[in-house]
Amino acid sequence: MSEFLSKRVLITGGLGFIGSNLARRLVGLGADVTLVDSLIPQYGGNFQNIADIRDRLTVNICDVRDPFAIEHLVREQHFLFNLAGQTSHLDSMTDPQTDLDINASAQLSLLEACRKANPGIRLVFASTRQLYGRPDYLPVDEKHPIRPVDVNGINKLAGEGYHLLYSNVYDIRASVLRLTNTYGPGMRVVDARQTFLGIWIRQLIEGSAIKVFGDGLQLRDFNFVDDCVDALLLAATNEAAIGQVYNLGSREVVNLKSLAELMIQMVAGGRFEIVPFPADRKAIDIGDYYSDFSAIERDLEWTPKVDLKTGLAQTIAYYQQHHAHYWNAST
Amino acid sequence: MSEFLSKRVLITGGLGFIGSNLARRLVGLGADVTLVDSLIPQYGGNFQNIADIRDRLTVNICDVRDPFAIEHLVREQHFLFNLAGQTSHLDSMTDPQTDLDINASAQLSLLEACRKANPGIRLVFASTRQLYGRPDYLPVDEKHPIRPVDVNGINKLAGEGYHLLYSNVYDIRASVLRLTNTYGPGMRVVDARQTFLGIWIRQLIEGSAIKVFGDGLQLRDFNFVDDCVDALLLAATNEAAIGQVYNLGSREVVNLKSLAELMIQMVAGGRFEIVPFPADRKAIDIGDYYSDFSAIERDLEWTPKVDLKTGLAQTIAYYQQHHAHYWNAST
Repeated sequence: MSEFLSKRVLITGGLGFIGSNLARRLVGLGADVTLVDSLIPQYGGNFQNIADIRDRLTVNICDVRDPFAIEHLVREQHFLFNLAGQTSHLDSMTDPQTDLDINASAQLSLLEACRKANPGIRLVFASTRQLYGRPDYLPVDEKHPIRPVDVNGINKLAGEGYHLLYSNVYDIRASVLRLTNTYGPGMRVVDARQTFLGIWIRQLIEGSAIKVFGDGLQLRDFNFVDDCVDALLLAATNEAAIGQVYNLGSREVVNLKSLAELMIQMVAGGRFEIVPFPADRKAIDIGDYYSDFSAIERDLEWTPKVDLKTGLAQTIAYYQQHHAHYWNAST
Repeated sequence: MSEFLSKRVLITGGLGFIGSNLARRLVGLGADVTLVDSLIPQYGGNFQNIADIRDRLTVNICDVRDPFAIEHLVREQHFLFNLAGQTSHLDSMTDPQTDLDINASAQLSLLEACRKANPGIRLVFASTRQLYGRPDYLPVDEKHPIRPVDVNGINKLAGEGYHLLYSNVYDIRASVLRLTNTYGPGMRVVDARQTFLGIWIRQLIEGSAIKVFGDGLQLRDFNFVDDCVDALLLAATNEAAIGQVYNLGSREVVNLKSLAELMIQMVAGGRFEIVPFPADRKAIDIGDYYSDFSAIERDLEWTPKVDLKTGLAQTIAYYQQHHAHYWNAST
């Protein structure tokens, strides 16, 4: 992939899980990468995520809610991967205004900054399958009704909408990917704010029981972060993706109990327990979910390559080695 | 309708077009009505709208973006008709953040206020058909894909989403109506910010030509404000409406040229001209639109009763008499 050679690339949320993995790939492709990250402790930013590439890119600490900083930072960039976000569904219910400020308001002001300062930029926005809500049918394709079950889903939908609108009305070339559960080295494991898999891996390595909510039969699909990075790069470099929304997903669909069983086999002493849904989680749970990702397969020739067992083994090995930097991560 | 007798009712945007007509009806039904209005000059608030009922209700001037005022005002109310909004599609493109603050952020904080201070309140939110965007099919029912073509549509969708979410998750009983073009006495006629019909009526009465954009063949449906008020009251008093979204609409579907022809017959010297679409309007135009409103007909037994000719005649007569209070309206 030569499209990024010597190109200036900005990644918001760049010290986070997906941002840092994307940055590593882009540095390898010869891009001139700048990471933007707020380092808010509850979010995913962590310098350990870029320990191996720290001297090959630029880090700019600021919040996407800072419109002046963002307007400066988007200037002269060729690509913008817009990954910064508040990801916790529960936090969006207890502090909805912060979720709105980050996932909607800051996105709008970022697009205004692009419109004013760099309308030729190429943008990819990381959205979420959360905005489909409880599926009417499976697998969920992009035509499925949009029915967010939490404040996060509503605000992410607005953020996604602004990107598509600015693409349609102002020709600011943007693409949207609706990510499903993404996992891999660098994900937040302090708690379940980013993904429940984070806390599961921590529990597993610490020797405590993984907690599976409900009956454990909820179906999910998962993407290893390298596959997600593939999709981001393909979306950024294909004309066909401009103004489009694509689901990511996986052919491996598993229920949470089976996933827990798979994971406990990988670590000596691993175990799990089935526990009742906490009330606050039950209220916003979406039941079974997995994606139809045939649109991105067709248009961008993306397909997930890393199977769950391989990806999980790699992830667990990473945290067994590096947990000191993640268990109590603040920066 | 006895459900409002001696009940406390709050109306945001209460000095505006629909709010004031709703207030008049509620005062007649014996309700204890409080109007909230910001009196922002570009919006619809106008004391002339309540000149005949001024001493039969309470007016509280404040902005829905003021969370402290709103939390105080929602206390002990039985009903809340949430009509305050930024309605101009064009303004939402030139000043998107203000549209977001009013149509999304303030709605979220209003719902938080209800959750904390008055979770037993009954809420009706005025949404808009604008969020469907360019129709895939006609008439447009509530299952039609949501595809806003301007910032206003995205933010109104978020505002609507918060209402449904708080109804589903917190049992704050809310209903949503998606209004189509509403017209009648009290609408803003200074400019086209609220509805193009406002500026048409002004042009007609002033003796200048009504300007019809494009080819004039765009189809639209219209509701006279009394019909819209009927729907608001029915939504507020029916259990079936809780957590639901309903389109309003009309069986009379007309193109804009025919509408102009109808209107110029009503005023001596009336005339219209076909002019090209201004570029900024063309970019966000939705083409033909009319609603399928069978859901609200079925569930709430609502149906529009005032035909276009009768409604327009009444509206024109109102502005012929009262134009001094509207032509240069600020308050």
